[in-house]
Amino acid sequence: MSYPTFALEGELAFTDIGTLRTEAGAEIPAATIAYQHWGAFAGDPDGANNVLLIEHALTGDSDAADWWGDLIGPGKALDTTRWCVVCTNVIGGCKGSTGPASEHPDGGAWGSRFPALSIRDQVQAEKQFLDALGIHRVHAVIGGSMGGARTLEWTLLYPEKMDAACVIAVSARASGWQIGIQTAQISAIVRDPDWAGGDYYSTGKVPGDGLAAARRIAHLTYRGEQEIDERFGAQPQRGENPLGPYRSDDQRFAVNSYLDYQGARLVERFDAGSYVALTESLNRHDIGRGRGGLIKALAQSEVPTMVVGVDTDILYPYHQQEHLSRNLGNLLAMAKVVSPVGHDAFLTESRQMDRILRNFLTLSAPDGLNFGPAYVGDEYYI
Amino acid sequence: MSYPTFALEGELAFTDIGTLRTEAGAEIPAATIAYQHWGAFAGDPDGANNVLLIEHALTGDSDAADWWGDLIGPGKALDTTRWCVVCTNVIGGCKGSTGPASEHPDGGAWGSRFPALSIRDQVQAEKQFLDALGIHRVHAVIGGSMGGARTLEWTLLYPEKMDAACVIAVSARASGWQIGIQTAQISAIVRDPDWAGGDYYSTGKVPGDGLAAARRIAHLTYRGEQEIDERFGAQPQRGENPLGPYRSDDQRFAVNSYLDYQGARLVERFDAGSYVALTESLNRHDIGRGRGGLIKALAQSEVPTMVVGVDTDILYPYHQQEHLSRNLGNLLAMAKVVSPVGHDAFLTESRQMDRILRNFLTLSAPDGLNFGPAYVGDEYYI
Repeated sequence: MSYPTFALEGELAFTDIGTLRTEAGAEIPAATIAYQHWGAFAGDPDGANNVLLIEHALTGDSDAADWWGDLIGPGKALDTTRWCVVCTNVIGGCKGSTGPASEHPDGGAWGSRFPALSIRDQVQAEKQFLDALGIHRVHAVIGGSMGGARTLEWTLLYPEKMDAACVIAVSARASGWQIGIQTAQISAIVRDPDWAGGDYYSTGKVPGDGLAAARRIAHLTYRGEQEIDERFGAQPQRGENPLGPYRSDDQRFAVNSYLDYQGARLVERFDAGSYVALTESLNRHDIGRGRGGLIKALAQSEVPTMVVGVDTDILYPYHQQEHLSRNLGNLLAMAKVVSPVGHDAFLTESRQMDRILRNFLTLSAPDGLNFGPAYVGDEYYI
Repeated sequence: MSYPTFALEGELAFTDIGTLRTEAGAEIPAATIAYQHWGAFAGDPDGANNVLLIEHALTGDSDAADWWGDLIGPGKALDTTRWCVVCTNVIGGCKGSTGPASEHPDGGAWGSRFPALSIRDQVQAEKQFLDALGIHRVHAVIGGSMGGARTLEWTLLYPEKMDAACVIAVSARASGWQIGIQTAQISAIVRDPDWAGGDYYSTGKVPGDGLAAARRIAHLTYRGEQEIDERFGAQPQRGENPLGPYRSDDQRFAVNSYLDYQGARLVERFDAGSYVALTESLNRHDIGRGRGGLIKALAQSEVPTMVVGVDTDILYPYHQQEHLSRNLGNLLAMAKVVSPVGHDAFLTESRQMDRILRNFLTLSAPDGLNFGPAYVGDEYYI
């Protein structure tokens, strides 16, 4: 048994995973997966060990200790004195893993040559990443939204490689409504003249207007309508008059200023090509494909799986998590986050998520895990 | 007492309403309102009479006997052997009333010179229209969505001019979420290069791509997500492969083909300038403005008002109608349409709407109305 080799704790590192062959038959040669980890590995890389694989959402990245800062760290729910928490940047992303903005083997950016990815392709890339690291089993995979979709696919593609899964704020497949609203976002980007058919990387321009428009739409699905209304209502943006005698794009309601800000912030930190590629993968999310449909696929699931939803989620309504819980072959538990925030509550309602993740680890490792020196005692058990 | 003069039953006719002065201080001189009516007028044009004023939604028009075809006509809920049903095209629209595409007094289309309208301006135009026709009171105003917003404003602007109101699938003011998603639609249009700052009418081009994109977003708020999913799920459009190795705009899921169709159909029948103007008026919907806030405004309402909502409405969630019902000063009744269809259910669930509108007329005219020859007996009472 050889121990896996990790980069320094918390540091962004890059792993060559070789060629990724996509579900639809394309190839990404010499693919790279970026990752970060926190906490020391303990246990058997081929068997029981202390790895928690965290799956980020659409525009997230491998820095889980940042975006789940209240939940990952010493003494926190995902206690890094106990667990080895690993998070990769998804293939197709723009935070270190190979994506549309990366250099193509033949030169230039991948751009329009970048294949369409499914959620399964993302999981496949992650499996190759773990193989490259020398880890062939993890204790659990945990993720929300697009990360929840990957987590669910993990349980069906590689059930033998995990003890448990925590699937948060997602569905068994993209619904018609989700495909519609996600495609509206893709449309906002590809209608931007600076998109250049996806090959804008050499033009010196980025389709920022399109990406911002996409984000404004998306953000309204990430947030509950009651929370948005409580915060902004119909208030004018300070110093602007949205009730003037003529409509003007620069005379805004406060909510529009907020959405403009969300859009501008995303343009600064995210690549439009990755946004399109990953949104497309959400459209293709369907755990029933090639498995006899949704119900059969869920029924054949063997991995103890906890399902978590948010009561006010517009994007992945709670009935979709109820559907998962009714049909999963090995349901570990069900939890509801109660919040006006909507979909994003799995990122913002830290107190509730703290209890939920602690419960998940207690349920998935009821007798504790004892692999050796990484464990410092029982004091972190709840 | 002089009787009002109507055009022929069912025919589109046009009435000059003079100058409309908007709430924000602009003017539309020599404004025209298009209308249709069904059923003979009976009663006192200054007092009790049999006029039902129907208010259409955003992209509706005066042909209420078409878009509410199951509900308006002889023997139907809005029985045209009994009632004189009148429906105008909203000011700012493109179906005969003055709007951005109409000719400006100085020549050319109004375009960007067209003022921003509020819902109150729409009601004001309609009041001037009724004055021009010689009708100074109606039995009831009835409308859904943007038509519901106008109906609600009628009850506060001209309570002395009506016996009752039926307010369907709307709220007391635009919520932050509504303003956000509506502005996303405006943004889709004004980002279209063919929009030309709103002055495209002389260019020979129309911002059709933008208008279609706006409609695709809007339609996802008009329909319940469960209905959309039941109809389309993740099915591919016939003859297309949305799961191919590369993403392509012409390889679609069925839901996207459906949304493209809805967009294309709107481009054929509707003007982008009107769409922007009327969507802007929805952003400005706020019955509390200048009336001491929402609660005070609702409390001072004197008109017996029936409130109707749809249980699965994403755009105007049912809690908004509950809010109206809790706070209206003179609540006549409350009714819930139960349907997977969402917001549009007030247009599609004819059987439920039939019962609701019959109940509304029974409640609002409990002793019947007896004005003379237009009435043929009691057999239509429920």
